[in-house]
Amino acid sequence: MHDRIERVRAKMRELNLDALVVSSRTNIRYLTGFSGSNGLAVVTHDNAYLITDNRYRDQAPLEAPNAEIFIAVENLYRPLKGQKLLQNCKRTAFEANHLSFRGFSHLRDIAPNNHFIATENLIEKIVAIKSRVEIDKIQAACLATEKTWAAVLPMLRPGMAEVEIVSELYYQGLRNGATAMAFEPIVASGKRSALPHGTATSKSLQPGDFVVIDFGCEVDGLKSDMTRTVFVGEPTADQRQMYEAVKTANALAFSSIRINMKAAELDKIVRDRLTELGFEKEFSHSLGHGFGLGIHEIPRIGQKSKDWLLPNSVFTIEPGVYVPDMGGVRIEDDVLLAEDTPQLLTHIGRELVTID
Amino acid sequence: MHDRIERVRAKMRELNLDALVVSSRTNIRYLTGFSGSNGLAVVTHDNAYLITDNRYRDQAPLEAPNAEIFIAVENLYRPLKGQKLLQNCKRTAFEANHLSFRGFSHLRDIAPNNHFIATENLIEKIVAIKSRVEIDKIQAACLATEKTWAAVLPMLRPGMAEVEIVSELYYQGLRNGATAMAFEPIVASGKRSALPHGTATSKSLQPGDFVVIDFGCEVDGLKSDMTRTVFVGEPTADQRQMYEAVKTANALAFSSIRINMKAAELDKIVRDRLTELGFEKEFSHSLGHGFGLGIHEIPRIGQKSKDWLLPNSVFTIEPGVYVPDMGGVRIEDDVLLAEDTPQLLTHIGRELVTID
Repeated sequence: MHDRIERVRAKMRELNLDALVVSSRTNIRYLTGFSGSNGLAVVTHDNAYLITDNRYRDQAPLEAPNAEIFIAVENLYRPLKGQKLLQNCKRTAFEANHLSFRGFSHLRDIAPNNHFIATENLIEKIVAIKSRVEIDKIQAACLATEKTWAAVLPMLRPGMAEVEIVSELYYQGLRNGATAMAFEPIVASGKRSALPHGTATSKSLQPGDFVVIDFGCEVDGLKSDMTRTVFVGEPTADQRQMYEAVKTANALAFSSIRINMKAAELDKIVRDRLTELGFEKEFSHSLGHGFGLGIHEIPRIGQKSKDWLLPNSVFTIEPGVYVPDMGGVRIEDDVLLAEDTPQLLTHIGRELVTID
Repeated sequence: MHDRIERVRAKMRELNLDALVVSSRTNIRYLTGFSGSNGLAVVTHDNAYLITDNRYRDQAPLEAPNAEIFIAVENLYRPLKGQKLLQNCKRTAFEANHLSFRGFSHLRDIAPNNHFIATENLIEKIVAIKSRVEIDKIQAACLATEKTWAAVLPMLRPGMAEVEIVSELYYQGLRNGATAMAFEPIVASGKRSALPHGTATSKSLQPGDFVVIDFGCEVDGLKSDMTRTVFVGEPTADQRQMYEAVKTANALAFSSIRINMKAAELDKIVRDRLTELGFEKEFSHSLGHGFGLGIHEIPRIGQKSKDWLLPNSVFTIEPGVYVPDMGGVRIEDDVLLAEDTPQLLTHIGRELVTID
């Protein structure tokens, strides 16, 4: 934690900031260790404060031993005033994408003489570069994800409901090394597989269905994120071609990664290939995204992204093709861009698996 | 959906508003049906718009058939400008607690001639009064929660890890009528049970542990929320007394509910009794909260709440006592305040269950 805060302070010195008010839940956890649902962190050059409510009175000091903790009765901003936490600050930054309009009003009211500076992605850019410890936990999360897949794949059968598969993912994930699941798993079959973010329903797997299964495990808050698509019964030539196009795109994505390349360039290489293969409009989302404590972090790997693929970053590559009223295919893997070379963190086979 | 939007429009007329920009994910779902993770809704007197991104291109029209849908490439606010959605509006309201500082800047930029009005809880106050259909789904979610508890309770054994219990809750929940789980279940045992919001760890149940299990099922987005506390082995007289105090408080909470009473008054009745029983500081959170599509809704039932307990509202009553380094007890039930009388929605027994 201390290293993380020091990296933020270095950035604050660069921007001539006296304080940074942190309202993003993930960023609060990154800086202090606190995992609760309600909080506010304030970093100055000499102190780190965490404000939360009474539910977390005993949990906050356990999780955030390096922060000075205040319990607010109703309004998280009140201790800022009562304890005069911003008293010696002139230039105070906040997170423009995370602080609510009302939160900003509170800030202005409690420290009317401060000059407030809107920042975007200040902490996110620091978060994007992973430490050894973070990478180890992400690898542990990926391993748990692989074990979970290995346990659940043999259970898949025609007639099984999408939500039953979700229940198995949770059950096996939490028994195979996950401390939590990274997000609510996506299981979408048949026509529903054409919805990239289809949540599971009571629909059961039927012959002729593509089944997109997108899930991840979490270890101490650090996540993984993997998708495999299986087929129920025997695919037609068109369906096989669609699957092969995505598999080709997934392999091309990995082999095209270069350290310090523009994220948008990687997206374009893969998008161009899928266009050649006849799936331009059908690849309807971005190629990938960073992850860690959050499930969507920098770098965003999409057409409009201004991010770069930097050493010690971790991100997904997840080409997909979605044909409305027919179905969809997505193959998603996790990549560590180490100092010298990209490494796959998820190794589950990508050949089309059919179940019956 | 149509009814819901009409209720919002009635409120807009009362406040002389031409448009309402909705950025809360739960409120967007309430008004349009759209369940995706990224969106913006705009309600005018003649139209309802939903703006989201390409991942939801095909899902959005399925879920939100009554809204006119726009897919934004990068910035959700851009279609507001391009499509001139706010062109004929003079007074445009937004959600001050949900719209980010940056979002508000975008709004101001795209419609510089609009007068913007910050609102708080405009939709939340409408959401708090449940329809028959919503109540039916909440009851279905409560039933699934009861069935899940009935399936998981017999599995509890000394030596079982907290996360194993979570895995069983997910597994059984999704096979007993839940379309999803309402939130990540809380399972906290032994000293950890003194943390009201302790997330599950690999710690295993040991003789002498209180085990707080707080979870809920969801049906079509509508939630339930229940807590039971069990004991491993034989409790001491002090531990039994602590449990009985919470059980008494839970029963008192239910029997003290009156239609149109102040929520803070109900909290006070229960808090005073726990104080008499020697647990003033140990009841370290509020008595309860509304729920529905969101897990924390109006009414807030706490000391500082300004909310009222209105007919057709649904809320939890969840007294708890937490002794640092020793353990905690919470007993939480769901209540429907029908037109004439309060009704318990969760019926699982509240006698102390010991496991061995």
